[in-house]
Amino acid sequence: MKLSDLGEFGLIARIAGHAGAAGARVLRGIGDDCAVLDSGVPGGVLLLTTDLLTEGVHFERRTSPARLLGRKALAVNLSDIAAMGGTPAFFTVTLCAPPDTPVDWVDGFYAGLLDRARSSGAALVGGDTSASRGPITVSLALLGECPSGEVLYRSGARPGDGIYLTGWPGESAAGLALLQMEGGEPPDDDLAHLRTRHLDPEPRILAGRRLAEGKLATALIDVSDGLAADLGRLAEASGVGARLEGDRVPLSPALRKGAAAAGRDPLELALTGGEDYELLFTASGDAGEEALSDVLGLPVRLIGRVTAPGTPLAIIDPAGNPLDLSRPGHDHFLAAPPGPELPLAARGFSSQPRKLPMFFP
Amino acid sequence: MKLSDLGEFGLIARIAGHAGAAGARVLRGIGDDCAVLDSGVPGGVLLLTTDLLTEGVHFERRTSPARLLGRKALAVNLSDIAAMGGTPAFFTVTLCAPPDTPVDWVDGFYAGLLDRARSSGAALVGGDTSASRGPITVSLALLGECPSGEVLYRSGARPGDGIYLTGWPGESAAGLALLQMEGGEPPDDDLAHLRTRHLDPEPRILAGRRLAEGKLATALIDVSDGLAADLGRLAEASGVGARLEGDRVPLSPALRKGAAAAGRDPLELALTGGEDYELLFTASGDAGEEALSDVLGLPVRLIGRVTAPGTPLAIIDPAGNPLDLSRPGHDHFLAAPPGPELPLAARGFSSQPRKLPMFFP
Repeated sequence: MKLSDLGEFGLIARIAGHAGAAGARVLRGIGDDCAVLDSGVPGGVLLLTTDLLTEGVHFERRTSPARLLGRKALAVNLSDIAAMGGTPAFFTVTLCAPPDTPVDWVDGFYAGLLDRARSSGAALVGGDTSASRGPITVSLALLGECPSGEVLYRSGARPGDGIYLTGWPGESAAGLALLQMEGGEPPDDDLAHLRTRHLDPEPRILAGRRLAEGKLATALIDVSDGLAADLGRLAEASGVGARLEGDRVPLSPALRKGAAAAGRDPLELALTGGEDYELLFTASGDAGEEALSDVLGLPVRLIGRVTAPGTPLAIIDPAGNPLDLSRPGHDHFLAAPPGPELPLAARGFSSQPRKLPMFFP
Repeated sequence: MKLSDLGEFGLIARIAGHAGAAGARVLRGIGDDCAVLDSGVPGGVLLLTTDLLTEGVHFERRTSPARLLGRKALAVNLSDIAAMGGTPAFFTVTLCAPPDTPVDWVDGFYAGLLDRARSSGAALVGGDTSASRGPITVSLALLGECPSGEVLYRSGARPGDGIYLTGWPGESAAGLALLQMEGGEPPDDDLAHLRTRHLDPEPRILAGRRLAEGKLATALIDVSDGLAADLGRLAEASGVGARLEGDRVPLSPALRKGAAAAGRDPLELALTGGEDYELLFTASGDAGEEALSDVLGLPVRLIGRVTAPGTPLAIIDPAGNPLDLSRPGHDHFLAAPPGPELPLAARGFSSQPRKLPMFFP
């Protein structure tokens, strides 16, 4: 049997099975956006996450400028800290690159990484470098912190809670579709915005922190693998069902324009497109969109409701019928034959469930 | 300019230059075996290290069984914690592998990793997986802990201190040379021992901890890139010189036999061979070999003495003349043209100096 037969989620389940029970100081191991660790800090916990980016899977040098890739490599890790309600602190980076890699590329990568580090308050404290026989591969590990009583897990959603989303889903996937089609300069501001959303995503650190310190959410996850897939994970971790109203999913004018240019359906991009790095959370019934938007400093939309344990995740189309999505999320190994244009994909087995959740009835 | 023009040490200096000054909570960033972080634990610090292994550079599937590679991937990180006097606690692992990788290989890798984790007290708490267009690449990040007053840096050596080494240097390099020459079964126990030293090194965690808690050393480093290179790093970090007596370097009978079989000089292997993962430390004048061996539970040899600031690192041959080593350590990028048989090499820019130390007068 090969990895391509097992698939990414099968592999993760296998690793989690091998790993077995962690010690008493591991408050949460594999199965959330970060590990949550008892570090001995009075009243505080450590958060630890790791994510890798490899050329040909997560990026192409042709379409990803080195500086933006550096920013993104840290941003995707910062998003995992945000998804626990934490504050980023320290990170390391390993870089594997062919000997003929231009030094300018490496300079650009680190400049972007450190630029993102400065704006987020995370400090680069170490790393490792090696020649590679293959593509450029970078791997980061990021430590964050959170007051013990404020950590937001995927597992706290309760029936009746509202399901909320920050920002505009699908824009990153639309940007990627445009990058893969085009050769030339950005034809207008909307389409350039979509590409930026893909190449230089903004982790929602402050919003995550505000949800945590205000105790405003019952469960929280970042949208890295697609809204439907990540809602499925949150529901599975919480042991509940969920009903997502397709007509409440916000579709930005830029997304509509980009989807049209790429010949894609904007709702499908919003539901299945990965790498938005928006926050998806649940909150008890009385939290309002406007009040939440004010506190988080981001547009927040109520897009559905948590349903009883045992009910499946249902996505309802504007006519009131269950939607069937043929491709609810990314799987690196199943979806990724080796070749120069492997699909972009999201990341994180600390951000992955133990098995692929069942999305549809 | 390409990475191959800059070299690994040039690259690391460049990264450290980009990174600039770290915050007040970073007690040691780039430039020691681990970063040392103020985590808010009363009386304690966090240690953080990261190391990668990539196929074709650090291992070949032909000669490295998956289970031993898993053990080694953690061992090399554990060795960095040992080299600060710390205790390992939590780790993450990222795995990049081609879709056609056998699941048996992956199972073996994680089995070895977790086997080593259990025996060291470190818990696997998360990770990431991805398909790869190229070779198998694994990257680990390991968190450890140490009482604040006990951390052993590279930088504490003082003129007159003795230079001490645990165990038998060069055995790993001899084992590698044998692995690269041979196809068949191990012809005898000595040569099998050398191969095991290369494929399944033993991190000196307990010895490091005992040096730290007993305040027995003034400076400490692990021997990952070769005895001469790593002594150069320790001396440079401490701002001192060092005199290493070649005739005091312990050459094991197995090393002598392996060097003969591989047509290599045993002293050269002991001085320049990487991946021993022994501890190299300095201690004030009255520490004896026998007493130290008893406390550390390992053979300890006095191999030289720290000399005044401004004096170079000198390696003296048995006849009393300075030795000139043509290849004092590994450099991934300079030494590594792309191809199926890149040289094995050691790792760690948290375990690297800011610039290549000058080894010889």
